[in-house]
Amino acid sequence: MASDTVHEVVEMTGHLIDSWILPRAWDIIMDRGGNFVVEEMRVGISKTETSYIRLKIVAPNDEILERILSELQQFGAVLTHANDVRTAAVEQDGVLPAKFYATSNLPTQVRLHGQWVDVEGVEMDVAIIIDQENGRAYCKPMHEVRIGNEVVIGHDGIRVIPFERGREREAFAFMQSSVSSEKAKVLAIHEIARQMKETRARHGKILFVLGPAVIHTGAGRDVAELLRQGYVQVIFGGNAIVTHDVESALYGTSLGVDLQSGEQVEGGHRNHLRAINAIRAVGSLEKAVEMGLLHDGIIYEALKHNIPLVLAGSIRDDGPMPGVISDMIEAQRRMRQEVQGVEMAIMVASMLHAIATGNLLPARVRTVVVDINPAVVTKLADRGSFQAAGLVTDAELFLRELVEALAE
Amino acid sequence: MASDTVHEVVEMTGHLIDSWILPRAWDIIMDRGGNFVVEEMRVGISKTETSYIRLKIVAPNDEILERILSELQQFGAVLTHANDVRTAAVEQDGVLPAKFYATSNLPTQVRLHGQWVDVEGVEMDVAIIIDQENGRAYCKPMHEVRIGNEVVIGHDGIRVIPFERGREREAFAFMQSSVSSEKAKVLAIHEIARQMKETRARHGKILFVLGPAVIHTGAGRDVAELLRQGYVQVIFGGNAIVTHDVESALYGTSLGVDLQSGEQVEGGHRNHLRAINAIRAVGSLEKAVEMGLLHDGIIYEALKHNIPLVLAGSIRDDGPMPGVISDMIEAQRRMRQEVQGVEMAIMVASMLHAIATGNLLPARVRTVVVDINPAVVTKLADRGSFQAAGLVTDAELFLRELVEALAE
Amino acid sequence: MASDTVHEVVEMTGHLIDSWILPRAWDIIMDRGGNFVVEEMRVGISKTETSYIRLKIVAPNDEILERILSELQQFGAVLTHANDVRTAAVEQDGVLPAKFYATSNLPTQVRLHGQWVDVEGVEMDVAIIIDQENGRAYCKPMHEVRIGNEVVIGHDGIRVIPFERGREREAFAFMQSSVSSEKAKVLAIHEIARQMKETRARHGKILFVLGPAVIHTGAGRDVAELLRQGYVQVIFGGNAIVTHDVESALYGTSLGVDLQSGEQVEGGHRNHLRAINAIRAVGSLEKAVEMGLLHDGIIYEALKHNIPLVLAGSIRDDGPMPGVISDMIEAQRRMRQEVQGVEMAIMVASMLHAIATGNLLPARVRTVVVDINPAVVTKLADRGSFQAAGLVTDAELFLRELVEALAE
Amino acid sequence: MASDTVHEVVEMTGHLIDSWILPRAWDIIMDRGGNFVVEEMRVGISKTETSYIRLKIVAPNDEILERILSELQQFGAVLTHANDVRTAAVEQDGVLPAKFYATSNLPTQVRLHGQWVDVEGVEMDVAIIIDQENGRAYCKPMHEVRIGNEVVIGHDGIRVIPFERGREREAFAFMQSSVSSEKAKVLAIHEIARQMKETRARHGKILFVLGPAVIHTGAGRDVAELLRQGYVQVIFGGNAIVTHDVESALYGTSLGVDLQSGEQVEGGHRNHLRAINAIRAVGSLEKAVEMGLLHDGIIYEALKHNIPLVLAGSIRDDGPMPGVISDMIEAQRRMRQEVQGVEMAIMVASMLHAIATGNLLPARVRTVVVDINPAVVTKLADRGSFQAAGLVTDAELFLRELVEALAE
Repeated sequence: MASDTVHEVVEMTGHLIDSWILPRAWDIIMDRGGNFVVEEMRVGISKTETSYIRLKIVAPNDEILERILSELQQFGAVLTHANDVRTAAVEQDGVLPAKFYATSNLPTQVRLHGQWVDVEGVEMDVAIIIDQENGRAYCKPMHEVRIGNEVVIGHDGIRVIPFERGREREAFAFMQSSVSSEKAKVLAIHEIARQMKETRARHGKILFVLGPAVIHTGAGRDVAELLRQGYVQVIFGGNAIVTHDVESALYGTSLGVDLQSGEQVEGGHRNHLRAINAIRAVGSLEKAVEMGLLHDGIIYEALKHNIPLVLAGSIRDDGPMPGVISDMIEAQRRMRQEVQGVEMAIMVASMLHAIATGNLLPARVRTVVVDINPAVVTKLADRGSFQAAGLVTDAELFLRELVEALAE
Repeated sequence: MASDTVHEVVEMTGHLIDSWILPRAWDIIMDRGGNFVVEEMRVGISKTETSYIRLKIVAPNDEILERILSELQQFGAVLTHANDVRTAAVEQDGVLPAKFYATSNLPTQVRLHGQWVDVEGVEMDVAIIIDQENGRAYCKPMHEVRIGNEVVIGHDGIRVIPFERGREREAFAFMQSSVSSEKAKVLAIHEIARQMKETRARHGKILFVLGPAVIHTGAGRDVAELLRQGYVQVIFGGNAIVTHDVESALYGTSLGVDLQSGEQVEGGHRNHLRAINAIRAVGSLEKAVEMGLLHDGIIYEALKHNIPLVLAGSIRDDGPMPGVISDMIEAQRRMRQEVQGVEMAIMVASMLHAIATGNLLPARVRTVVVDINPAVVTKLADRGSFQAAGLVTDAELFLRELVEALAE
Repeated sequence: MASDTVHEVVEMTGHLIDSWILPRAWDIIMDRGGNFVVEEMRVGISKTETSYIRLKIVAPNDEILERILSELQQFGAVLTHANDVRTAAVEQDGVLPAKFYATSNLPTQVRLHGQWVDVEGVEMDVAIIIDQENGRAYCKPMHEVRIGNEVVIGHDGIRVIPFERGREREAFAFMQSSVSSEKAKVLAIHEIARQMKETRARHGKILFVLGPAVIHTGAGRDVAELLRQGYVQVIFGGNAIVTHDVESALYGTSLGVDLQSGEQVEGGHRNHLRAINAIRAVGSLEKAVEMGLLHDGIIYEALKHNIPLVLAGSIRDDGPMPGVISDMIEAQRRMRQEVQGVEMAIMVASMLHAIATGNLLPARVRTVVVDINPAVVTKLADRGSFQAAGLVTDAELFLRELVEALAE
Repeated sequence: MASDTVHEVVEMTGHLIDSWILPRAWDIIMDRGGNFVVEEMRVGISKTETSYIRLKIVAPNDEILERILSELQQFGAVLTHANDVRTAAVEQDGVLPAKFYATSNLPTQVRLHGQWVDVEGVEMDVAIIIDQENGRAYCKPMHEVRIGNEVVIGHDGIRVIPFERGREREAFAFMQSSVSSEKAKVLAIHEIARQMKETRARHGKILFVLGPAVIHTGAGRDVAELLRQGYVQVIFGGNAIVTHDVESALYGTSLGVDLQSGEQVEGGHRNHLRAINAIRAVGSLEKAVEMGLLHDGIIYEALKHNIPLVLAGSIRDDGPMPGVISDMIEAQRRMRQEVQGVEMAIMVASMLHAIATGNLLPARVRTVVVDINPAVVTKLADRGSFQAAGLVTDAELFLRELVEALAE
């Protein structure tokens, strides 16, 4: 080893082979311009045994070594020299120290006084704050950090628990990265239904992220049914879905199309403006339900069953409908709150809200992305370290089939 | 009117306003560089009355006048000077006279000895042959014309019956050009089912054009069910669908994916080669059914119920499977034969075969195009003079819902 | 005419035939369940002459008559009985009177004391406020109306100037509704360049709406060139484009991909977080330019040339970058301000911002929508009353060709 | 190891780590229900060193063991017990022995009398014929095998040379599986140009597969330029591209759209029928060039430079144009002939012909797939063992940029 190189030794443990962790690690080392020596390796013989490897990573300079270590951490590599996590203090509100550590969406631990401590509220691309006093570590987005917060920097004392694909016949196994429209979806829908039943049985939390096409296609009644049956614990959406749901409940149309006959009942899209205006006149969606003005649809069922709704606005909105949050930072804050404890996320015919939600979800949440546009499904479901299944299919027929499968 | 212009007078009768025929006609005249004078116009007052217009078309030269007349004929315009149709004789096999008239897919008449005669076997882009002896007119594709055939040329004595959109609440009305994935499809599927029932009740002929995704998605069983229930009178497809249908019947897989579990049961795509080889070994699909080798699936049901299958090959085929026609001219000839009398055409998850079929169908055939790719649906359903409804949706869920709707 | 029907007489003047106004009007009347009698009609003979028609509209009840009139107004129909516009006062902040008139994006006039007055600031789906004192009429979105505002209701005294497609060989004529990827785009790009040159020559205002793919594909340099050459007067975008533009200027990457070599230079997307953090540390984009930290790219050129930037946030944003507006109502307000006077709008690789901008633009603005996804182009360009041309093509190659065409 | 299992020992050598061969092999073993013991393993330390592994594969029964071995062979695994290849004789023309070995598109060797012999003419999904007399092995598609042919069966004595991704900064490396429309394409186009120059310099063979959109978009002139500059050695296409190329040369239109002005010059698509008819009248494309009738365009340049054209028909064709092969088996035979020796394949805006060609190409051919539809690019470029780069971009702008890049 040339004297002008730098190196570091890391250890990895787990299903390194099954989960393709090892080859991806080797790939990264070499792609970034480094090299490695296998110091020790034990391959788990049977499917349940884990493997162990100790690698010496060699790089031409510190910057490259740092990059490699940073990426290997996502696969669970831990530095053998076992220091505590390092931090720097925030010196300006909303600004991180230069060498801040950015999280992945994987379970993460930091080493405090020689002890590995779980990082709370993990999501993608945020900072880790250390609360030395209470021996806690938790996530904070950049704009929320305040002067004096101790922010994790560098790579020492950080351990990421990589996402290990189950080898056993697993629920989501056959769907993963199967975004093709040419695969059998009825099978997949029944599998999703089975998992929803299990989740409901153990009082788990299921999140639905819904786009307005759910209403336009007449599938609002299917979501309402899911709400009545207790399969929805929280809903994320935008101004459009709530507006068209109310329009549908008040006037029987969605974007001016009659949901019974499929015909355009009136020119323009005026009904959606009338729907917004009607709710603004009474003050809130809750008030509209209370007064009996709104007595049908997704919003009605959600409010009746006390299901939290996070309705986040966007610049293309008319109105907006009361209840829609127009400040994005506030909307994200509310979404962050409500994703806590979510076990399954079903995202249907939404792009903006689905991507936003995907950014906030920890990797362990089982996520189903349904869209007729393969680009949306690919964008959301095709992440290496994310437990997502994508279905390129019709939102309406998916929801209809799902309701049927849950009834079996 | 300047002395250096040419002109011609045409008459049009029908639902000129409802069907947008008049404005499209005016548009064409001006787009092509002509002008017009309304010589007489009677607008039908009520919905059932027809309108009448006599237009003098003015153009700067004969070539432009000819173009305009050629296009107006598609909207039913007839020259007032009422000559008989003109013809020229074919002088070389498979070659048309220079000024040959190319058909549209609309009902067409020609004037023979002062009488309007229906043109038989109308389809898009072919020539009209006059059989003077028997007073008949019929269509022939270019490559089939033979020396001595009398081919219609120019524009005299030709009358096209334009496609008139029904004003009354019509079966297909609400679906037309509604290729959006954001519309309610369950409504549309029930409407299609209603029309299929009507068609079956009057012993009408329903054509299915099927792509291989029907098998990959596990919807082969739904098509088999439609066959058993008498809703399919003829099937068009290619090497892929027959191969995967046989693969599915013989090995339970499609492209190597187990249709029960959704899992890859074997590497590569070898099963489809085995399926082809197995049928080649016994000699034909019919023989395979007879021997009990093939006892399940679309092909089995089709052969059992004596449903004609036209299986047309393509350059990407393996094998091919016995029964697949490898000569394209022969395949088209067989398709032309079998489209005679078809009243409805349901095209699912096929592009090549659906476009080929669309080219052969007269405008009056009610055509449903189902594909998850909006580009395919647009290409096929979005033709002004064609009675096509497009559904951007999932083939598997469409067929499943269709079977359910037919069972109601 | 039966005694139990209601009727109203309207007049229409203009290029009723060329612009398909008449048939669309007739269509609407009959689709909505009404009928009509042509009381007088004069068809313009030559291309430059306008046509005139007076129609008696008959409907079974007032509600249907109202709907028909409401839609016909979009085509320029004016009631012959010529009343002044009617208004009702706002009784609750942010809530419109029940029968409020919702605007289209077409030029609109209202009749005040017998005089036709132009409505200021017209955009789609907003209310018209009457300032009786000053004899003015102007648009306001629902949430901005205040108690006491006089809001236009019903249909009396309203005149919409319909969008008339030019008959002459017009700039945009050949592109309209030509969203196909199968058409020659080099021709269209040269036509767009010609119009941009004309617009610049008369000191007109060109708006660019940009998505982040502009940076990812390396086309940021082309937009920077357009800025240097004076072809951009205002930019709309979001957090992503500004973040990746800064990332590109600071680190040479976009989403971590080296824009010189096309290679992933670092794992994850950490550079975009670093870029945001770096600007947050200095306080603003303006400060970053001033300090010499930011010395390249779209934002740099825009700030240097005093081009207004409206950066609107969304719920999927990291950061956000300083300068990004996180309140949607404020963002819309700023966008409304900046679209005033815009003559051309070029929207590239953006969906959310392009739709939001499209909602705010009056119909007369020449709009070019460029996206590789046909669905986006269709959604934006395919509106009857909107002067939009859609190009289904590559953002990078479009901008590159545009810069070349402008240099000719 | 339980007594009721079966096992086999295989060896693998090469860039097992870099090329992800090892983990994929392990994956397959376990996915199929087997297990393995690493008997010996040597990891190449530096990038240029190869690795070696000897694995004992254990499976519950012979069928599973066979499947595993069959798949591992695609990664270069060779049975250690080193038998000669086994064969069975064809007993019926066009029918393979039941246990026939189906090829991949990778370089393959068979062991004859203890010697490893290269299999000639390798392509996907065909059989290997052994010519014992001459010690040769070559590929044959199923339908061409004849009684008495010795066909390879089972897995003994077969060695596949796996596709090893180059670790060094390789031409295609950065493009592989980068089908996104959001990546910089100008870089990729310049890289393709560089490789085309190299290929031309060493008199290598470049194949172009072209769809009709090349003509519709006006990019025919760019392909003509490539032909003049010697960058095209063979062309595959269909009836549509040749018809529209001739239409363009004869009438200046493509599907009736003027390629100079972008305007529809005539109703319907009659010009394409006229173009076909005109060539049928003179007898052949060659004759048309000779007579001076055809003096421009792709076909003209190809014939003038003696570039082989394989024009394969399909069932959707009008005409067909003389020179188009209407028998699919003959068309495939001609394509097989002409792909011999091809080093690069550029496939633009074609789906059917591109897939057909992809099936025939050995893995070593550098293939570039250009289409604006991501589904086409994914289908073609996204194969593990295939050296394909996909560009989701505009055919016209791609070809324009390519011509410019080649001129630098």
